[in-house]
Amino acid sequence: MEKKKGRVTLPSEQNFLAETKELLERWGADAIRDSDGTKLDDEIKQLDAKIYTTYFVARAHNEFAEKHPEECQQLYLMSQFNTAHGETLEIDFMEGYFEEQLRPDYVHHPKKYWEVIDRTTGEIVDCNHWDVDEDLNCVTISNAVPWHEYTVSFLVFVIWDPTQMYNHITNNWGDKPHDIPFDVRGPQSNEFMATYLTQWLKDNPNTDVVRFTTFFYHFTLVFNHLAKEKFVDWFGYGASVSAAALDAFEQEKGYRLRPEDLIDQGYYNSSFRVPTKAYLDYIDFVQQFVAKEAKKLVDIVHESGKEAMMFLGDNWIGTEPYGEHFEQIGLDAVVGSVGGGATLRMIADIPHVRYTEGRFLPYFFPDTFYEGNNPVIEANQNWLTARRAVLRNPVDRIGYGGYLSLAYKFPDFVDYIEKVTDEFREIYDNIKGIKPHTGLKVAILNSWGKLRTWQTHMVAHALWYKQIYSYLGVLESLSGASVDVSFISFDDVIQHGVPEDVDVIINAGDAGTAFSGGENWKNEALITKIRAWVHNGGGFIGIGEPTAYQHGGRFFQLADVLGVDKELGFSLSTDKYFTSPVEKHFISADAGVFDFGEGMKNIFSLSKETEIIEYSNGEVHLSSHDFGKGRGVYIAGLPYSEENTRLLMRAMFYAANKENEFHKWHSSNIYCEVHAYPAIKKAALVNNSMEEQTTVIYDGSGNSKEVTLAPSEIRWEAFSDES
Amino acid sequence: MEKKKGRVTLPSEQNFLAETKELLERWGADAIRDSDGTKLDDEIKQLDAKIYTTYFVARAHNEFAEKHPEECQQLYLMSQFNTAHGETLEIDFMEGYFEEQLRPDYVHHPKKYWEVIDRTTGEIVDCNHWDVDEDLNCVTISNAVPWHEYTVSFLVFVIWDPTQMYNHITNNWGDKPHDIPFDVRGPQSNEFMATYLTQWLKDNPNTDVVRFTTFFYHFTLVFNHLAKEKFVDWFGYGASVSAAALDAFEQEKGYRLRPEDLIDQGYYNSSFRVPTKAYLDYIDFVQQFVAKEAKKLVDIVHESGKEAMMFLGDNWIGTEPYGEHFEQIGLDAVVGSVGGGATLRMIADIPHVRYTEGRFLPYFFPDTFYEGNNPVIEANQNWLTARRAVLRNPVDRIGYGGYLSLAYKFPDFVDYIEKVTDEFREIYDNIKGIKPHTGLKVAILNSWGKLRTWQTHMVAHALWYKQIYSYLGVLESLSGASVDVSFISFDDVIQHGVPEDVDVIINAGDAGTAFSGGENWKNEALITKIRAWVHNGGGFIGIGEPTAYQHGGRFFQLADVLGVDKELGFSLSTDKYFTSPVEKHFISADAGVFDFGEGMKNIFSLSKETEIIEYSNGEVHLSSHDFGKGRGVYIAGLPYSEENTRLLMRAMFYAANKENEFHKWHSSNIYCEVHAYPAIKKAALVNNSMEEQTTVIYDGSGNSKEVTLAPSEIRWEAFSDES
Repeated sequence: MEKKKGRVTLPSEQNFLAETKELLERWGADAIRDSDGTKLDDEIKQLDAKIYTTYFVARAHNEFAEKHPEECQQLYLMSQFNTAHGETLEIDFMEGYFEEQLRPDYVHHPKKYWEVIDRTTGEIVDCNHWDVDEDLNCVTISNAVPWHEYTVSFLVFVIWDPTQMYNHITNNWGDKPHDIPFDVRGPQSNEFMATYLTQWLKDNPNTDVVRFTTFFYHFTLVFNHLAKEKFVDWFGYGASVSAAALDAFEQEKGYRLRPEDLIDQGYYNSSFRVPTKAYLDYIDFVQQFVAKEAKKLVDIVHESGKEAMMFLGDNWIGTEPYGEHFEQIGLDAVVGSVGGGATLRMIADIPHVRYTEGRFLPYFFPDTFYEGNNPVIEANQNWLTARRAVLRNPVDRIGYGGYLSLAYKFPDFVDYIEKVTDEFREIYDNIKGIKPHTGLKVAILNSWGKLRTWQTHMVAHALWYKQIYSYLGVLESLSGASVDVSFISFDDVIQHGVPEDVDVIINAGDAGTAFSGGENWKNEALITKIRAWVHNGGGFIGIGEPTAYQHGGRFFQLADVLGVDKELGFSLSTDKYFTSPVEKHFISADAGVFDFGEGMKNIFSLSKETEIIEYSNGEVHLSSHDFGKGRGVYIAGLPYSEENTRLLMRAMFYAANKENEFHKWHSSNIYCEVHAYPAIKKAALVNNSMEEQTTVIYDGSGNSKEVTLAPSEIRWEAFSDES
Repeated sequence: MEKKKGRVTLPSEQNFLAETKELLERWGADAIRDSDGTKLDDEIKQLDAKIYTTYFVARAHNEFAEKHPEECQQLYLMSQFNTAHGETLEIDFMEGYFEEQLRPDYVHHPKKYWEVIDRTTGEIVDCNHWDVDEDLNCVTISNAVPWHEYTVSFLVFVIWDPTQMYNHITNNWGDKPHDIPFDVRGPQSNEFMATYLTQWLKDNPNTDVVRFTTFFYHFTLVFNHLAKEKFVDWFGYGASVSAAALDAFEQEKGYRLRPEDLIDQGYYNSSFRVPTKAYLDYIDFVQQFVAKEAKKLVDIVHESGKEAMMFLGDNWIGTEPYGEHFEQIGLDAVVGSVGGGATLRMIADIPHVRYTEGRFLPYFFPDTFYEGNNPVIEANQNWLTARRAVLRNPVDRIGYGGYLSLAYKFPDFVDYIEKVTDEFREIYDNIKGIKPHTGLKVAILNSWGKLRTWQTHMVAHALWYKQIYSYLGVLESLSGASVDVSFISFDDVIQHGVPEDVDVIINAGDAGTAFSGGENWKNEALITKIRAWVHNGGGFIGIGEPTAYQHGGRFFQLADVLGVDKELGFSLSTDKYFTSPVEKHFISADAGVFDFGEGMKNIFSLSKETEIIEYSNGEVHLSSHDFGKGRGVYIAGLPYSEENTRLLMRAMFYAANKENEFHKWHSSNIYCEVHAYPAIKKAALVNNSMEEQTTVIYDGSGNSKEVTLAPSEIRWEAFSDES
């Protein structure tokens, strides 16, 4: 069988021509990229492959930036909390910040753009009662109330690009100049970005794909006075703020933002905060601007006959691939880093581009590629978690990053990637554009909805946090499951009701967060629409502290649907008799030891109608409850594992009252899955583990047979219409 | 040495004269009581001992109660939550309630006294839009909003006294008549209670002490349709409510209560709820009434030459021994059940009575006194936990309850109680009225303050709840510790500041509860007064979720004092670097394995100035933080144990900046304590364990010596002024 080629991107580097050619052949690559810290030789650029070249729009042009300090990027920052001991309070507002990154903005008048807030009362201090010492970076409040806490919200210039800063500090780049990020909202910068790109395209005729890394605004990344990370929010719009942006916002939206609309008590509108209208307006405003300006660059690229690709990261703020303005940019492609199934889907599901590309792990860096380590293991794990998602909706290309010369020293790794790239192409060729069999339609309900598709419960994607892993498991499980997944917001439901075709709604998160919903659950339209929908046959799955908002004698506002609530101490006086789990249950039929991750304390059953599936430590952690023709299922937490993926699948089918559909295109063994494609009459049986697995496989009619799959195997089977 | 006598009360029963005499002698008892289910023979009443006779004011007089059903006691109840499926909603409001206990009140017009509430919006349904079917006990709402939840708040008559109901059902009393509780607010009942008592006193000339069990209103105890407990609140004022009381309240306080002021969303103003002004007004109103009416009875008793004693339980509602109206009752004594140190202090510290009496455990009932069991163990444990508290402030008498004949069958038990009674008398004779050495003055700060002295975090005293034990340990530890303990409310601090002589404030509880404080922590006067006080040298100890209320960028409003806050998910983007515990710390110097009980999740340190003492599972559980001249200490939870008592003592001395005072009248061994009485130059060295203990003992000057104490030993030592 002739070896297929294509859909794979290779990183390369200088003085590595022969090996690049070899790997191009073996991995079937049809594109070559540079990476951070690598450049491509001209000979390499002449190979039979597309050339991707990294392009920075708003940094790495200090010759320009230094001439236009007034167009430097900006941030709103909040000082530390400062307690007044008397009526005069001096606040060293830069305390804790990194002066090589951040410089207070005295160009725009502090009394207009800054805010001093009495955090004890929440009131703004009249700007006649404070002054700034620009030499000392100090605000002095003259009429402080003793023992109140005060903060200063202030504008700074960001004088060092965060990504370069991170690399610079991490790699001890010494006196290498600091990239100064400039803001294309400024007229000089706006002109510069276009003229420079035009020239650059001329200067780089061999480039086929301009890999924007990325556009204008970096996600928020602020360092502290010890030159270590202080604040990082991959979703943070902090660095899109500027005096000019605030003025333009007022022009456009008809009202002026307060600094506090962006400072948000120091939480900076973390995506865990239930978003305010002002913040939603602001990010929409930025998205519009970014789309409009990015389109200009993309148009220039297209005029030069090249493709425009966007890296989903770094300066991606405002692009929001699932937002309303993304389409307008007109990008050819998006490339992003794949940490597992959920991040693969985050890339693969992006609409309005011709193709998507996933950069797989491991990165070819010495932290993995060192003597004595076997990089195949990480690559295999990465591929197995991502493959489930690829089988639901493939990215169009895969690729790697880092030093190819390093990877080349590990022949087993080279062999393994050869297999992976072949396997990827086989999957792609089979299923691209083919709708896989879908057992259920699932909607994840939170404050963000579609805008943050596959992006819930994350601070920076792929970072582990104690407070999120018990929810992230839901996304990871769903990313490769035989269900359709959509993301809907509370406003969607309030305005349009639950979408017709949804079988199951999942609401997962800690109380008060945007993901659980906070005070949204006091909205009677939201409550009644969901209640009616469940009663009419819908399935509602609550994880953690779903629908949580203390009101009207309930903490879980849909306690009546879920059949459980959380004891906050107010109803201890009420006896709670319902503590006996059912003997067996559809949801737990495949369960061994339960793992609810962080779990949830003090959940109790409201009545004997609640089917308690797991009860321990005086608490319910898993339960189900009929509500009319529908059902509510409660799960205390769901970290990712094969066991929990199965638990969630069963919970969804049960909630939707579709247990009888469960054994279609199904594998009895939790380490295996079946992905069926009725339109092409093929099914992929996959072993998601690195061990051999034997499993009973059910086809679409429920007929079963036993199969044994080799470690990591994918086996394609044709089936007839009767299946 | 001649055997001392007195201060001990013996239960007795019929046909037990000789043994009663023997035990009277051996235990040195000087009083004899009847118990539930026992009566005293006339011969026993002639013995050289005071006779206590149990007296019920408002029940056990069915011949009267049946004639005056309109004066039957009442309750406000809330129906279950009912979801409207259409515009008409029928609510079976008695569903889940026990019809033998509760009968809907149709005497007083439901449209005046009841309330139908849309719990989804919180709005009251206009009473023109609902009707009651008195035959079916059903409320029909005619204009319900589909998928809203509704409840009915309704008045019932309580037709069975809860204590008798409990005993009746538990002991299968069959067709024995149900005691009907009547309300002395009714004119007939009010007259009856006085005339009956007057006659009763004449009929019971041998009674020396009338043991009221108790006065007018039982704590809330509601049974369900299965004749099992549904709701119990030892602090509940539910049964003091009536149409008459509501009308009188309006007359007295100038405004009318809504049913919801008492229903409280179905939480019924549990003492864990931050009390509303209306509820505080209401309980004050009841206390005034109870005091005035109880005084009438006490006066009658006194006129007959007898003493009036109140049992702290059952129908104690409204007496509030630590309240403002209690003194007015004019009681001679209070007797209550002793479950440990905290409950002993709850009795012993009661002001305005001539004496207090603790009923010790075990009760002489077959559940403890059965063949093969050794009741000495429970008695010994009970005595050891209580003795610590007795050494701080003794009750004036101790006693027992139940069947004396049962206890008599256990000679070892009889021997042991002989020792206990001797030991109690020795302690009492030594220290009554003598102020013990006090290392610190500690104030427990919550919504209730002094009113609920030694009564925090309890549903029914002595009942274990998962949600309270980690806080109750604080009270138990303090009850026998060498510190003065007071209970102050947020209003106390707001109005009068922190009392001058307080060294340490403790705020302990779950977020939102009356014990933590909920929205009180948004009060700037409270915040600033405590902040100033700590800064000036005070010690603030927060346990669980102290000062918790999400506001102004903080969850713990005194996070600046404590140096820690709780991560709710909003500040995950902020790096948290401070996770390294100090190598050693004054607070943990005696600690082995930490036990924070339920603990607390997601507590993090705000800065490097916070001294982390224990960090595990990604969380701070014990820490200290300097704040000006004072300190804040955080503890995740503190169930009772000798280890945690020591931890709390060290935390308090550290918080108060009085570490150098710690080794005065101190025992190095945590199972031993030193109680010193400077006025009499005596110290009691106690071994609180049932094993021999060796310990270094420090006197008041810090001089030390090693001593070995026998199991449970108390050793009295004289000391000179130099100590």
